[in-house]
Amino acid sequence: MKAEIIGVGSELLLGQIVNTNAQFISARLAEVGIDVLYHSVVGDNSDRLERAIEIAQSRADVIIFTGGLGPTKDDMTKQTVARMLGQSLRYDERAMNKIKSHFERQQREMPPNNTQQALVLEHSTALWNERGMAPGMAITEDGITYILLPGPPHEMKTMFDKEALPYLLGLESDHDVIISRVLNFYGIGESDLETRIESILDEQTNPTIAPLASPDAVTIRMTAKAKTEAEAYRLIEPVEAQIRARVGDYIFGVDEETLASRAIELLRANGLTISAAESLTAGLFTSELATVEGTSDVLKGSFVTYSLDQKVDVLGLDRAAIEREGVVSSSCAQSMAVAVRKKTGSDVGVGLTGAAGPDSHDGAPAGTVWIGIATLQRVKTYRLQLSGLRNANRRRAANFALYYVIRQLKEEN
Amino acid sequence: MKAEIIGVGSELLLGQIVNTNAQFISARLAEVGIDVLYHSVVGDNSDRLERAIEIAQSRADVIIFTGGLGPTKDDMTKQTVARMLGQSLRYDERAMNKIKSHFERQQREMPPNNTQQALVLEHSTALWNERGMAPGMAITEDGITYILLPGPPHEMKTMFDKEALPYLLGLESDHDVIISRVLNFYGIGESDLETRIESILDEQTNPTIAPLASPDAVTIRMTAKAKTEAEAYRLIEPVEAQIRARVGDYIFGVDEETLASRAIELLRANGLTISAAESLTAGLFTSELATVEGTSDVLKGSFVTYSLDQKVDVLGLDRAAIEREGVVSSSCAQSMAVAVRKKTGSDVGVGLTGAAGPDSHDGAPAGTVWIGIATLQRVKTYRLQLSGLRNANRRRAANFALYYVIRQLKEEN
Repeated sequence: MKAEIIGVGSELLLGQIVNTNAQFISARLAEVGIDVLYHSVVGDNSDRLERAIEIAQSRADVIIFTGGLGPTKDDMTKQTVARMLGQSLRYDERAMNKIKSHFERQQREMPPNNTQQALVLEHSTALWNERGMAPGMAITEDGITYILLPGPPHEMKTMFDKEALPYLLGLESDHDVIISRVLNFYGIGESDLETRIESILDEQTNPTIAPLASPDAVTIRMTAKAKTEAEAYRLIEPVEAQIRARVGDYIFGVDEETLASRAIELLRANGLTISAAESLTAGLFTSELATVEGTSDVLKGSFVTYSLDQKVDVLGLDRAAIEREGVVSSSCAQSMAVAVRKKTGSDVGVGLTGAAGPDSHDGAPAGTVWIGIATLQRVKTYRLQLSGLRNANRRRAANFALYYVIRQLKEEN
Repeated sequence: MKAEIIGVGSELLLGQIVNTNAQFISARLAEVGIDVLYHSVVGDNSDRLERAIEIAQSRADVIIFTGGLGPTKDDMTKQTVARMLGQSLRYDERAMNKIKSHFERQQREMPPNNTQQALVLEHSTALWNERGMAPGMAITEDGITYILLPGPPHEMKTMFDKEALPYLLGLESDHDVIISRVLNFYGIGESDLETRIESILDEQTNPTIAPLASPDAVTIRMTAKAKTEAEAYRLIEPVEAQIRARVGDYIFGVDEETLASRAIELLRANGLTISAAESLTAGLFTSELATVEGTSDVLKGSFVTYSLDQKVDVLGLDRAAIEREGVVSSSCAQSMAVAVRKKTGSDVGVGLTGAAGPDSHDGAPAGTVWIGIATLQRVKTYRLQLSGLRNANRRRAANFALYYVIRQLKEEN
């Protein structure tokens, strides 16, 4: 099945709201193996909607509409579809009762246009709106299925899952199971990653392999289609093994795991606590750790030592040594890591110092970062040379520190 | 002018990301009076993209593309447009230099496919990508303007404002000057704000007044059209004065000013330094201050005291008092603020404690936050009851603390 999602509403074209409905429906359809080939958005204009529907009819066999089912004059989705399919509208009794009793409960008189919400396409299946007034509709005509859903996301989502998706799956005589697994990478660029696994990418059709870059990570999503879940996982397994064999060093987690959640998990599994002394990141590294629920058994506390004075007064670093080696140096990162580990009594101490930019700092060019990680076994330092803007550099420095903590813990434990 | 926005990328059709680019561009075009009649989304498939472009050519005179300009094989927007317009691609020297120097600075070898990012349509105007590698393109052929923008929102937004919009406005033969001024609010909800200035909103057509809510602030954008810049500002001035008279207390800054930049500016103007003791925010408040360039004269350093032990050991708080009053209490926030001010020798001390969620913390329900702000004159505490998820609550707590610092500094200085 090939699907197209048509969002109806001028507020989308004016940029007042973002089309999250298309994302939700797309993700759901991907899971059940229905390909979405296009999204469209049109305003509250019947002629333009009609033309958009004609285009969709020429390229899709499932057309899903969101929006335009409300009681006001500019709501015209079902009227337009009805005209194109040569159908009239009928009142859906269940929806009508819901609307009437809503106004009765509120002891308000019902504005007459509200009954229009209960109108559905003559030969359609009405889809129950658990969270609102306007029912949805599903109808299949000349091999094309039309699903009409309300615009408000909370109404749409419930209706989609409980009413529309079962209708769609009932249409598929022999439908497959779709399973996805996501590998999360750090420390490697998207194009470098693709180059290294190119031959795997080229060979694979089931599972499909889709690399994706975001500011915080690069991911590879493997999606397999099969008769059963177990069979789908059996298709994914050898491909994952192949990818891990080539670029496994850069994989920090799978599916919903983040750098922070993975670091916390490894610390907890090894019964370790962590603290940081942060200069350029100024608290961002520690705050990232605290994004994970219930971290207080692992995260003790940290110091933001932004000025040289703070590094000396709070951490007890040797002023002369810093002045000799520079604030942005391996030795400063190392001293910060060692000092914070000792000061807080943590098992792991992390030191972050660098020149976030735009200016150079203490002789180091913008983007230079030193990360120190002190554990019971050893102290290691890592150098980064970043090229982004100030806050991208700060963010990447915090992420790299999380990544190196993960790597070092894996090596040592 | 009638515009259509085409988002290119299979990750949109798979529901992995939401098409915020279409919203951003739509809102900007609405401000300058360019009608957006359709949004479309297609995957990384050259044939389907070509058909989407043919449809757009039949109904729009400005076609704006986002996505598909990257270095990988599935990036094919410019190749497809080039083929349809019968043009070849040329290397843009400025972009090429940026890509080369990026890899040089990182001391990494450049994967060969990266140079493809510097290719632009033969006869197009290259649009500079301040925040990334791939340049955009603008070209007008047979009365239709094609604007190609990168997919990552932060790259796209900067390029749109600085490069694409000026190109588009230059196309209008007798174009007016468009001037926008943005008022930034905190501590007030969008609908409350709209209700309070409803009569101003209803009356105004030039400047237009557009409220917009984001997770970090509510803004009002006033956009005036006039023959000259000075004239446009003269139209905006009285409307801004009207708005300030009604809801000025909630305005923390204008245009690009953030809560952090405004706080830093006020501190610097008064010759004051700041430090924080953070519990639930775990460094986020301090990190927000450090997003602003050159803060080291104002920001001394902070303590993340996540555990009770750290609050006692590092800040020297009275364990018995905390155990009596609770960690999430006015007195704890106050003690943290006073202690960090003293410990660091700062002029302003900020204490943040609370239950981020999802669970309650030390008897306080999730979302309860206490903020203490200690200055030379006084110590004040503020209570929040937030209702979001864990990290939204942490973020809002940090933002509210910045907002209260700004208010308190304005009152006291």
